[in-house]
Amino acid sequence: MTTIKATIGVDFGTESARAVLVDVSNGRELASSVHRYESGVIDDHLPGDGTRLPLDWALQDPADYVSALGTTARAVMDEGGLDSSQVIGVGIDFTSCTMLPALDDGTPLCQQPEMRAEPHAWVKLWKHHAAQREADLINETARKQGNSWLRRYGGKTSSEWFFAKSLQILDEAPEIYRRADRLIEAADWSVWQLTGVETRNSCTAGYKALWSKKSGFPDQEFFGDLAPGFAGVVDEKMSRQISPLGGRAGEVTTGAATWTGLQPGTPVAVANVDAHVSVPAVKVVAPGSLVAVMGTSTCHMALGSTEREISGFCGVVEDGIIPGFFGYEAGQAAVGDMFAWFTALLTNPALAGGATVTDPMSVHRVLENEASRLRPGESGLVALDWWNGNRSVLVDADLTGLLLGATLATNPADIYRALLESTAFGTRVIVEALEQAGIPVNEVVACGGLPFQNRLLMQLTADITRRPVRVASSRQAPALGSAMFAAVAAGPDGGGYESIVEASERMTRPSLEEFLPDEADAGVYDHLFEVYRELHDSLAVNDSPMRRLRSLQQRADNGATR
Amino acid sequence: MTTIKATIGVDFGTESARAVLVDVSNGRELASSVHRYESGVIDDHLPGDGTRLPLDWALQDPADYVSALGTTARAVMDEGGLDSSQVIGVGIDFTSCTMLPALDDGTPLCQQPEMRAEPHAWVKLWKHHAAQREADLINETARKQGNSWLRRYGGKTSSEWFFAKSLQILDEAPEIYRRADRLIEAADWSVWQLTGVETRNSCTAGYKALWSKKSGFPDQEFFGDLAPGFAGVVDEKMSRQISPLGGRAGEVTTGAATWTGLQPGTPVAVANVDAHVSVPAVKVVAPGSLVAVMGTSTCHMALGSTEREISGFCGVVEDGIIPGFFGYEAGQAAVGDMFAWFTALLTNPALAGGATVTDPMSVHRVLENEASRLRPGESGLVALDWWNGNRSVLVDADLTGLLLGATLATNPADIYRALLESTAFGTRVIVEALEQAGIPVNEVVACGGLPFQNRLLMQLTADITRRPVRVASSRQAPALGSAMFAAVAAGPDGGGYESIVEASERMTRPSLEEFLPDEADAGVYDHLFEVYRELHDSLAVNDSPMRRLRSLQQRADNGATR
Repeated sequence: MTTIKATIGVDFGTESARAVLVDVSNGRELASSVHRYESGVIDDHLPGDGTRLPLDWALQDPADYVSALGTTARAVMDEGGLDSSQVIGVGIDFTSCTMLPALDDGTPLCQQPEMRAEPHAWVKLWKHHAAQREADLINETARKQGNSWLRRYGGKTSSEWFFAKSLQILDEAPEIYRRADRLIEAADWSVWQLTGVETRNSCTAGYKALWSKKSGFPDQEFFGDLAPGFAGVVDEKMSRQISPLGGRAGEVTTGAATWTGLQPGTPVAVANVDAHVSVPAVKVVAPGSLVAVMGTSTCHMALGSTEREISGFCGVVEDGIIPGFFGYEAGQAAVGDMFAWFTALLTNPALAGGATVTDPMSVHRVLENEASRLRPGESGLVALDWWNGNRSVLVDADLTGLLLGATLATNPADIYRALLESTAFGTRVIVEALEQAGIPVNEVVACGGLPFQNRLLMQLTADITRRPVRVASSRQAPALGSAMFAAVAAGPDGGGYESIVEASERMTRPSLEEFLPDEADAGVYDHLFEVYRELHDSLAVNDSPMRRLRSLQQRADNGATR
Repeated sequence: MTTIKATIGVDFGTESARAVLVDVSNGRELASSVHRYESGVIDDHLPGDGTRLPLDWALQDPADYVSALGTTARAVMDEGGLDSSQVIGVGIDFTSCTMLPALDDGTPLCQQPEMRAEPHAWVKLWKHHAAQREADLINETARKQGNSWLRRYGGKTSSEWFFAKSLQILDEAPEIYRRADRLIEAADWSVWQLTGVETRNSCTAGYKALWSKKSGFPDQEFFGDLAPGFAGVVDEKMSRQISPLGGRAGEVTTGAATWTGLQPGTPVAVANVDAHVSVPAVKVVAPGSLVAVMGTSTCHMALGSTEREISGFCGVVEDGIIPGFFGYEAGQAAVGDMFAWFTALLTNPALAGGATVTDPMSVHRVLENEASRLRPGESGLVALDWWNGNRSVLVDADLTGLLLGATLATNPADIYRALLESTAFGTRVIVEALEQAGIPVNEVVACGGLPFQNRLLMQLTADITRRPVRVASSRQAPALGSAMFAAVAAGPDGGGYESIVEASERMTRPSLEEFLPDEADAGVYDHLFEVYRELHDSLAVNDSPMRRLRSLQQRADNGATR
């Protein structure tokens, strides 16, 4: 019997990090460990001194990442009963764009005592939404100059992305910007802590920092037009050397070995993004599948052999997901969040006689159970799933949700099903956009938390997209994907694999379940989708009732005296 | 000190009858009494033998009316401490069209032992909806023949009306139809029980039985085209002699005196309809006001000096409300019902940890309180109030409710306010239709149950219609109105009044409260109304998304195998 060889994959989420220890030979999960960040999401006041944060801010403490890495790495080796010598590689993935300012040696600015009370010195979490002004400026400037790179992002960049956040630092805290030797993704910064080497992964660079393999970053003139002093952001604060996915960033240093329990010299993979790293973990390494990471929101990814600009897509990045292919990304902004909004509406303790629902999942189960007994069309309802705007293909945060067809006979399960259906209709819009661009979608592969909680949503997605929906076997797809990239970083000589394709082939297991479209139901849903699509298209135009309502709301907000 | 002279008004509702004893000199309510019908609404099975009723049926037992009349008349005299000699008149009003088949002497067919198991022998309550096929035939036939009377009803008659219900008897139970010497409104039948004289009031004849003062009923050929044997319905089963409102139907018989405790010879007013009789009770006896009787649904009435055909109105009847004027009627099909639907949705005991809300009004109070803190437009929501179709001005039961503008931040109070606003927008559509036809609306006068329960709804109605909203002082407007007509039946010689105008002048009291439009809020609501109006018009057209959804729902229902 041979000794087990394993890799560790660590997935850094919004509230916590999760590590898995995986058998390299077959992908079996030997152990897992979760570590909640001590400071969590910092959106009210800074730790320690209590500096209040404005609305829309969301920060994190980089010390939490180091602590999560050390704690979980030790925990999985302990639980798995493996010696650190059996761990042949480490890989990590992260939320993105989550970025921070640091000194030349990697020290975060927020760890300098004189800067701890300065919000801009901390990590800006992906959902920090206070850089909208900067994003608007970036979009406007790029549009005016006719910059072709804008089309790779469906014509619009987001306030969540790297340069909007960086520019906000320069705008609002020029001294912090000046003191920052480096501006870097938290993913790459964490790898730097392990290896002592600064790298920049091609996935975040491509999807969040406007970089492409062919043409690099936007030019200095563009950045200079955004703000005086911003022209040199790439050369002064970043790097033009971008590391491809599947590569090795470096090895665990002696110092990092002491706080992680890993062997010095253990290979560390180039960092990755949580959604994108899930793709090989669900055995998708070639065109033909749409991977949907479904949680509070959904991220959709597909691979193509050619570069197409698809209006309203989040981005297309060469080698951005699987080397050798163009990675396409789209999204739906409110999925689990929208269902949770509805169950919270139904169980408001202030209204329901003061009763508090201790298990929100029980409400979902009751509703899913009742909703699954309805036939397509029976509720008479259709919804537009825009409770948090529309990410793809309209890219508009100002669009809002709609429920049409309510009567006195409408019950909670009717509405719940309509919300699930609207999610699947939104997915069909994305599938159709891909296919029209020549990117094939023969199946949907679902991972993330939702597919395990809501079978009805899976069946509806199959019926409405008319594609089989395969539910990935691992509930920890991102961490498993990172463990696969760790095996590729180790390479064949180190007990791992030559490529992510090979690692995916060997380390994934059969799907948990497959949902096939029901032909009769799909026929009814074709008609309902036409209704959805007409509402989708007609309400998104300028000056539609939806848009006028939104601008009246904004006017009411501006007039607020409270 | 003079002895008090009083009249009794009895309002026959859906579940119960309510009598008031009123001081004729000043309208003061001396006593009131409510009597619940023993058999209530019969919609599941017949009393006694248990014959099951099909869907959409709603019957009543005429014995309940007699029993309610006797019990409440005695009770109010007792409670008021008045002798029957002080009661100078009696008036009644009723739901309508609520009708029954009877023998020549007034005996209801359902009281014949051999017909008790026959559903068609019982009273068909206003909300008996099983005569839709007959209503469709009436509409289609009238349209084909270009009958001008159809325009008085906004182009469409309802399954709730007199001839649809009568024709259903002939279609489904020809033997009952043959045995029925009389087909009569329950209102007129009840007056018959008191007076021994069969009369037919002009209000129900005009609004529910296609009669008009100028041209009478539709002609025999029309009825003959509906079904063989139906040509003579008016002459064989009804009467062409229609009694004007404000007249005296007769006097209490010796027999009726024994079961009511009234004096034989007491004048009895011509019967009336609950909504219409409320108009003089809220001091509206001339053009200029819109009276809104607001409860589960809302009935709107206005007076005009001229006859106009207004598309989508329920009817215009000369002398139908106040003698000397054309009475216009419109309606909103779901008002209190829609708000109750929403609170029930929010407090579903199966979802809210099993908690049952013992006082639904407390939920309304919490929501109204929170909703009243919102500014116009602030919620970002707009609704179409079509939870039970649209009665005016679209007259379409197939239209459905809509909620637009929902986001993850939308809370119950936002939606509650949007539903209240949609009700007021619907009222504005009716106000505008009247004014376009030259019927002035300078104020809204609200009565019924809702105005006393929901002040926010009153304020929103004022802001949105840009008219003052006056809340009537009496919570029992229909019964008070009937007591006024009783005083007119008594006449000046009997201690009453010459006309309903005089009775209304003397017997109403100042409004409880007046809500004035807030100019700033009204300005915002003008914009929101434009949004409402655009959705209203665009979703009501043929083949709109709303209609396609509805027909898909009907197809799903037809395909049901459960």
